[in-house]
Amino acid sequence: MSRLEHCIAEPVVHREHFRDVDDDRPRLECGVCGVWGAEPDAGSAIVALGLHALQHRGQEACGIASVHEARFYTERHMGLVGEAFGGADLPRRMPGSAAVGHTRYSTAGGSFLRNIQPMFADLDQGGIAIAHNGNLTNFKYLHSQLVSEGAIFQSTSDSEVILHLIARSRKAKIVDRFIDAIGRIEGGYALVCQTRSKMIGARDPLGIRPLVLGRLGDAWVLASETCALDTIGAEFVRDVENGEVVVIDHDGLRSEKPFPQKAARPCLFEYVYFSRPDSILDGKSVYEVRKRMGRQLAREHAVEADVVVPVPDSGVPAALGYAQESGIPYEMGIIRSHYLGRTFIQPSQGARQKGVRMKHSPNKAVLAGKRVVLIDDSIVRGTTSVKLVRAVRAAGAAEVHLRSASPPILYPDFYGIDMPERDQLIAANQSLEEMRAYLEVDSLGFLSVDGLYGALEAGPRDPDNPQYTDHYFTGEYPTRLLDREIEEGGRQEANRQLSLLVSA
Amino acid sequence: MSRLEHCIAEPVVHREHFRDVDDDRPRLECGVCGVWGAEPDAGSAIVALGLHALQHRGQEACGIASVHEARFYTERHMGLVGEAFGGADLPRRMPGSAAVGHTRYSTAGGSFLRNIQPMFADLDQGGIAIAHNGNLTNFKYLHSQLVSEGAIFQSTSDSEVILHLIARSRKAKIVDRFIDAIGRIEGGYALVCQTRSKMIGARDPLGIRPLVLGRLGDAWVLASETCALDTIGAEFVRDVENGEVVVIDHDGLRSEKPFPQKAARPCLFEYVYFSRPDSILDGKSVYEVRKRMGRQLAREHAVEADVVVPVPDSGVPAALGYAQESGIPYEMGIIRSHYLGRTFIQPSQGARQKGVRMKHSPNKAVLAGKRVVLIDDSIVRGTTSVKLVRAVRAAGAAEVHLRSASPPILYPDFYGIDMPERDQLIAANQSLEEMRAYLEVDSLGFLSVDGLYGALEAGPRDPDNPQYTDHYFTGEYPTRLLDREIEEGGRQEANRQLSLLVSA
Amino acid sequence: MSRLEHCIAEPVVHREHFRDVDDDRPRLECGVCGVWGAEPDAGSAIVALGLHALQHRGQEACGIASVHEARFYTERHMGLVGEAFGGADLPRRMPGSAAVGHTRYSTAGGSFLRNIQPMFADLDQGGIAIAHNGNLTNFKYLHSQLVSEGAIFQSTSDSEVILHLIARSRKAKIVDRFIDAIGRIEGGYALVCQTRSKMIGARDPLGIRPLVLGRLGDAWVLASETCALDTIGAEFVRDVENGEVVVIDHDGLRSEKPFPQKAARPCLFEYVYFSRPDSILDGKSVYEVRKRMGRQLAREHAVEADVVVPVPDSGVPAALGYAQESGIPYEMGIIRSHYLGRTFIQPSQGARQKGVRMKHSPNKAVLAGKRVVLIDDSIVRGTTSVKLVRAVRAAGAAEVHLRSASPPILYPDFYGIDMPERDQLIAANQSLEEMRAYLEVDSLGFLSVDGLYGALEAGPRDPDNPQYTDHYFTGEYPTRLLDREIEEGGRQEANRQLSLLVSA
Amino acid sequence: MSRLEHCIAEPVVHREHFRDVDDDRPRLECGVCGVWGAEPDAGSAIVALGLHALQHRGQEACGIASVHEARFYTERHMGLVGEAFGGADLPRRMPGSAAVGHTRYSTAGGSFLRNIQPMFADLDQGGIAIAHNGNLTNFKYLHSQLVSEGAIFQSTSDSEVILHLIARSRKAKIVDRFIDAIGRIEGGYALVCQTRSKMIGARDPLGIRPLVLGRLGDAWVLASETCALDTIGAEFVRDVENGEVVVIDHDGLRSEKPFPQKAARPCLFEYVYFSRPDSILDGKSVYEVRKRMGRQLAREHAVEADVVVPVPDSGVPAALGYAQESGIPYEMGIIRSHYLGRTFIQPSQGARQKGVRMKHSPNKAVLAGKRVVLIDDSIVRGTTSVKLVRAVRAAGAAEVHLRSASPPILYPDFYGIDMPERDQLIAANQSLEEMRAYLEVDSLGFLSVDGLYGALEAGPRDPDNPQYTDHYFTGEYPTRLLDREIEEGGRQEANRQLSLLVSA
Repeated sequence: MSRLEHCIAEPVVHREHFRDVDDDRPRLECGVCGVWGAEPDAGSAIVALGLHALQHRGQEACGIASVHEARFYTERHMGLVGEAFGGADLPRRMPGSAAVGHTRYSTAGGSFLRNIQPMFADLDQGGIAIAHNGNLTNFKYLHSQLVSEGAIFQSTSDSEVILHLIARSRKAKIVDRFIDAIGRIEGGYALVCQTRSKMIGARDPLGIRPLVLGRLGDAWVLASETCALDTIGAEFVRDVENGEVVVIDHDGLRSEKPFPQKAARPCLFEYVYFSRPDSILDGKSVYEVRKRMGRQLAREHAVEADVVVPVPDSGVPAALGYAQESGIPYEMGIIRSHYLGRTFIQPSQGARQKGVRMKHSPNKAVLAGKRVVLIDDSIVRGTTSVKLVRAVRAAGAAEVHLRSASPPILYPDFYGIDMPERDQLIAANQSLEEMRAYLEVDSLGFLSVDGLYGALEAGPRDPDNPQYTDHYFTGEYPTRLLDREIEEGGRQEANRQLSLLVSA
Repeated sequence: MSRLEHCIAEPVVHREHFRDVDDDRPRLECGVCGVWGAEPDAGSAIVALGLHALQHRGQEACGIASVHEARFYTERHMGLVGEAFGGADLPRRMPGSAAVGHTRYSTAGGSFLRNIQPMFADLDQGGIAIAHNGNLTNFKYLHSQLVSEGAIFQSTSDSEVILHLIARSRKAKIVDRFIDAIGRIEGGYALVCQTRSKMIGARDPLGIRPLVLGRLGDAWVLASETCALDTIGAEFVRDVENGEVVVIDHDGLRSEKPFPQKAARPCLFEYVYFSRPDSILDGKSVYEVRKRMGRQLAREHAVEADVVVPVPDSGVPAALGYAQESGIPYEMGIIRSHYLGRTFIQPSQGARQKGVRMKHSPNKAVLAGKRVVLIDDSIVRGTTSVKLVRAVRAAGAAEVHLRSASPPILYPDFYGIDMPERDQLIAANQSLEEMRAYLEVDSLGFLSVDGLYGALEAGPRDPDNPQYTDHYFTGEYPTRLLDREIEEGGRQEANRQLSLLVSA
Repeated sequence: MSRLEHCIAEPVVHREHFRDVDDDRPRLECGVCGVWGAEPDAGSAIVALGLHALQHRGQEACGIASVHEARFYTERHMGLVGEAFGGADLPRRMPGSAAVGHTRYSTAGGSFLRNIQPMFADLDQGGIAIAHNGNLTNFKYLHSQLVSEGAIFQSTSDSEVILHLIARSRKAKIVDRFIDAIGRIEGGYALVCQTRSKMIGARDPLGIRPLVLGRLGDAWVLASETCALDTIGAEFVRDVENGEVVVIDHDGLRSEKPFPQKAARPCLFEYVYFSRPDSILDGKSVYEVRKRMGRQLAREHAVEADVVVPVPDSGVPAALGYAQESGIPYEMGIIRSHYLGRTFIQPSQGARQKGVRMKHSPNKAVLAGKRVVLIDDSIVRGTTSVKLVRAVRAAGAAEVHLRSASPPILYPDFYGIDMPERDQLIAANQSLEEMRAYLEVDSLGFLSVDGLYGALEAGPRDPDNPQYTDHYFTGEYPTRLLDREIEEGGRQEANRQLSLLVSA
Repeated sequence: MSRLEHCIAEPVVHREHFRDVDDDRPRLECGVCGVWGAEPDAGSAIVALGLHALQHRGQEACGIASVHEARFYTERHMGLVGEAFGGADLPRRMPGSAAVGHTRYSTAGGSFLRNIQPMFADLDQGGIAIAHNGNLTNFKYLHSQLVSEGAIFQSTSDSEVILHLIARSRKAKIVDRFIDAIGRIEGGYALVCQTRSKMIGARDPLGIRPLVLGRLGDAWVLASETCALDTIGAEFVRDVENGEVVVIDHDGLRSEKPFPQKAARPCLFEYVYFSRPDSILDGKSVYEVRKRMGRQLAREHAVEADVVVPVPDSGVPAALGYAQESGIPYEMGIIRSHYLGRTFIQPSQGARQKGVRMKHSPNKAVLAGKRVVLIDDSIVRGTTSVKLVRAVRAAGAAEVHLRSASPPILYPDFYGIDMPERDQLIAANQSLEEMRAYLEVDSLGFLSVDGLYGALEAGPRDPDNPQYTDHYFTGEYPTRLLDREIEEGGRQEANRQLSLLVSA
């Protein structure tokens, strides 16, 4: 009950890792990792390693909460995991054999420290720290309800809603309170929590967001992807299942499925772009899936050409697949800089017209005079692609044939992917020929939805019960979108009243 | 004469970019870039872009000096170019249409701010700022002489020796003083200087270090590599020649060759490792040279295998060449993390034994059960290689055949490459079979020196007048090593006296 | 309802103002200041000035919340007001014509950012920011009750309890919720709150902590002391009365006394030490009261001596009074350094024995050979006094007669004064003669309690209804001490059960 | 000869201590302190204590150089001594039993790190660190000569000139080089140097700047004032004499007077304002001198009044003297804030007209209705005084009689005092009556020059050989002003040529 249970030391490091503004790829908000039962005081360092391996899922901020003798130690930083948690003093700063961590990319402008996870609350039953990857589709609804009941929020993050639901549950035991809380939330989520004595993991009813279970000696590990297990040195045990809650404590691991079971429907974008190529997701190698996407793309959109060139790094596996299937040589026609920072100012008009190439540099020796097949993982706004295409042409390419290893992106996401609104999605607003002209390419091709399902070896898409979450391609959202309905309801109601007013 | 000629504003940013301690690749100390005659106040931003493109040549620190109306503006920072000089306020902070910049990796422990370049001096003739890539082989000799004449050094950098030689020259004009000064230094160097009204570039008599000339509209650009010209948007004009001094001012460009001409002898390691693959060095595409090195390696050291896997990123072109020549499929069997920071502490003994894989992650889906040809650009100490090999085996590889795209490294460098002492160079201390056993591989092969010359399309090595600087492979240093001779002379003299003493 | 109502920008400045460890004076936790109705965007800068004038009430941290068009702007910093809020960009950073601020010294180790005030909550009725000087005597009781009801605390500060009580009140209007909340708290407090449209001020039922009301043109100002009004340039209107709630909005000022009225009983220590000498407290000049304390002290404890020397700066007015009454010359025998920082390490044993005098330096020219009357405002632990006495003797004083301008401190405080526990209060543990010997003085005298009441021109102390809060001298606490009773009850209960166990 | 002799670690702390812009008091540039022969590794901490005691002589920046086994450790910081050198790790960071330090206030905009002292040079004879209080009157002349000989300056500080002169001396021994160097400089200076094995102190030929010698056990201490000795715990030995060089090493202390002896002529402003009141300067207590100045002021400028009020803190001793001589009671009518920071912005026009009182707050209870004698140490521009007078009147004073404890300041200084140009000195541009009217006082009086000499018990001023440096009052500069002559010569020459041109 003591107020000393929670030791916060947040040497707020404002060292931001800047996003390249030219980069319009979709972004995921988070990676999560937890460990329970590690060697004494090794918890935070293991989680730090895991978060480092998940850094591709979010580079803006990171945090860890460790538990030692029922006391919690929290640190949340702006910037990269290695800078925040790489120090040798970590076990002293954050003792304990259990810890949970989070790395995030923030969508809504609010990149303030208090939005960084893990979030912590000091309940009657003791402290709880929670790390959350995903997005709730009824966040605003729940938030407004909680505030009207007197809850005071310290962040604008949807994860805090879960904490308040736990704090206000009438159940006596912490696990029951947790289940009570997730029974009220909707959306896609992978959660890892630490209480004084337990680690709890949970995946949303459709398994939209991934979560895997591993063992490191006697310890248990939860992480967003298997690459974190590999980096930690843990053995992969299994994926946490959709709708499953796992509770780990001194009695071992216990699995609960408290809600009616549904068929799994994981997010396709994890395969297309988010997950690291060396991860194994729900039993499938991301690298091999991407190579098969490239092979299928070659079959769907063949072209006479001299070289296959990936947009590095995410386009590399599909380009290898395309090259192997087509027999056209694979070459590194675009070099990616490893030293990205904030966008540089452009020194003069002259330079701007020639294009300032910061992240990707065309390799003239490969491109000059060649017919180039350019392979990208996806095309969102098209703004990055057109710059790349121009750079490839400026380096002397005779022809440029652009191929997208994913189907056209037509609809926004509400499950944790930072994607632009519909009116900014190029494929939602232009015909194929319009896009080809806009992108200034000789030909343009997208992988088909069924081709993508094929690359996943999932058979063709089942229109009644799609095997994957694929709304960005199809418009079929896997869950209700309560916040959106309310918002649109409000807008419709306003419109209705306005028309009454006008007609009056 | 006014002391206000030089405005220094050094908001010392101690944001270090940490080196991966597991990484034992050789490192170059510097990249240099200068511009003269740009649009008003665009000088510093152009140089910042150029330095960003040269960031691979040094990530520890960077600096820029701009000149505006005969006044100099200097900033020197720890950390990356983008963080230090990416801001939109740069033209205001550092005005002028001329600027010179430097990015460095520091060898000798001294990574203090005062060793960061450009170095500046306020001469009778006005200020001069100097950026230097390379290393002087008579630095200690000159330094000691200058101190005995009353010179006060503000750094421990060999570049400051050049400044003092210029300051003390009896010549009246600044260009004559500069030539006077470089007439006394020995070693490998590429220099870019700014005076109140001129930009001066110089390359050492053998052209060991590279330097290229470009134009951006009416402005002139000097840079270590052509990739900087590409990023800036400048046209490549030509390489500065060995032993050439170029002077740029309102009368245009003037070339001088003040010393007896020698045959050029550029450093091979620029092709093997340092230069960016999209650079064109003395007329040769680095990427194509590396691919030919890989092809030749395949011819010299063929093996039955299932996949060719590069050590990313520097091993990629050679691996592509090897794969194309051998017909064995090229695969991304090792994933490189883009989020490197300081080395993480290792959380527990258990984890350590499994190996903490931070920079390179094996891709199980590619490696499991396969006979792997692993292509690296070079092998220095061998410590990194053995860890990689173990990781590849742990991921299930059936066989590992390691191939080095450069010949065995046998001798240290004194021209600006940060390489370990001879007793730490694995190839200088072990036989091929010993190395193979140490590296735990099934077979091991190095490219031959003549193979390397062949990849450069330079014909076989001419033993009397080698076409390239190649002492790390051959022991044949291209210049006198005065400091070393004095040091060894001192040691021998000490030994001689000691032996007299003992025998007495 | 929008979550964008609150803009937090906390560029966490960890620039601590270190406390002199040798200094054992009591400390107050806070100063508060608010303004409503100022010129556009002038609110934050006015409050900054006011907090600067109240800096003596707390130097560890400070914060301001301004309100502009129903949106709140909060900044909380470690360090001094001038460093945090002195910048010319403040009106831009924190716009609005209303603001509230707080400066604090933290008692409990927890000097974390999240304990800095003003505290903010986003209620159904809009945001509310609260600044609180004082201490609740039923904090732990309320905190524990709120947590059991599901409240999540973001700080360990008692001020947050008030926020939660407001948030959970069933009343509809914000002022009613506020009154509801303060009806449940006990202790000493001065509160200043800003809502979207109102400023609310409140003083505890006994007026233990001070709060004054002023006008600056058309604007209203609330502040802990009149010196803040003077610095701002505001006119003093009146003291807020004990038990009074003032509500200021577009309809002007409204006063409420929602609870049964009691006689006022302000804290004596405000006169003895806390308030600035130029403040007028409940109608009395602090400077004049202190001078009368010195005069009375001269009457109660006269002595033959050559000089009267104050312990600067707090002892100066009493020393002047003592000198004027006794006719002994007043001299600056001790010089106070204005440049205090963290305690310096003591370079050697030799230096330590001679005493490291950092804050107070004896002035030999005044002290040598003299009989010195040394006047301090109070004596708490005695540890500082003994060092000063030794320094005065080392400077050559023939005799040292120590006089305390306050009565002996015998009991701890629970209303916001940071004072040591009873076992560390010298007067609570030693006789007068023991103290005299411990303090190494020739004579020692304390002002009497009735002498102190006399200096306040309040007549003699009324033992039935004391006119002032004076428990530190008398042990008579003005309110119930619920937390303490529970704590002691728990201890007694534990002892009772233990004795049962033992007797069993 | 090794380059490792000098270990610089400058964790550049940009924590500036801001000057109150309203404060127009003159400022001294520096305080110096050195110790030799202290306990192992205690040198830097002793010097830190000494610098802390000298903090009133300069608050902008500070630096220490310690010597340990012929190696130098230098740190230079922006900000206060306590913040920079208060840490317990100082002996580890800066080992050695000898050290020298410096605290500075910078006049010329250039407050850059490289101007902070001690300055260091690595000579043939080993390192030398130098701390300098004062100003050279032939700095520009020497600087220009040295640059033309090839010297490269790293700062714009005149102290570096001395280093270059030492480095270029043809003498063999370091002490002879030092004497060689100071033989060429002119002006006012107190110097403390550390070499590998010696500490050297020197005071200019007239003893304009002070320097005292003390002992701390077996160690020797040099410092600007005795208050530093007191704080360190060292015994005062004697003042270093004008024109004296003291050399301290393992053979003890040796005194040299290498140049023709002149009569001493210390700076009067040390007594008027700079030195701390508890310092003993050339045998005279600064506090007692100031009190006598106040007494004499009362005799020279008596007035009927109710209270004597000092402008704290520097006016306090003179006000006490005035009060004792006149019999008018001394009262703290102005309260000085201890929490100064950068000047606050003024929130509104209304507030500005009322005057924003940040540093000095009038104490209404003392001033209302009273005839006030206001005592200040000196009047420079008069801008501060007029604000204070208005504040005192606003607090209700019936009459204000301003008294300056120094004579009118008529001429600028060139020996290290930061004073405005002549055209900004109020007394140089207005008659007494004009000043009285400008300052809005009822009467105004300045101490006479002879009265000041009297307070120093030096007899009347000897017009042929003034006993003190007093040019700010008299215009009689004690040394040649070479830089000024050259500058004016240049201006005259330009004017002459211009008139020729015009007349042609």
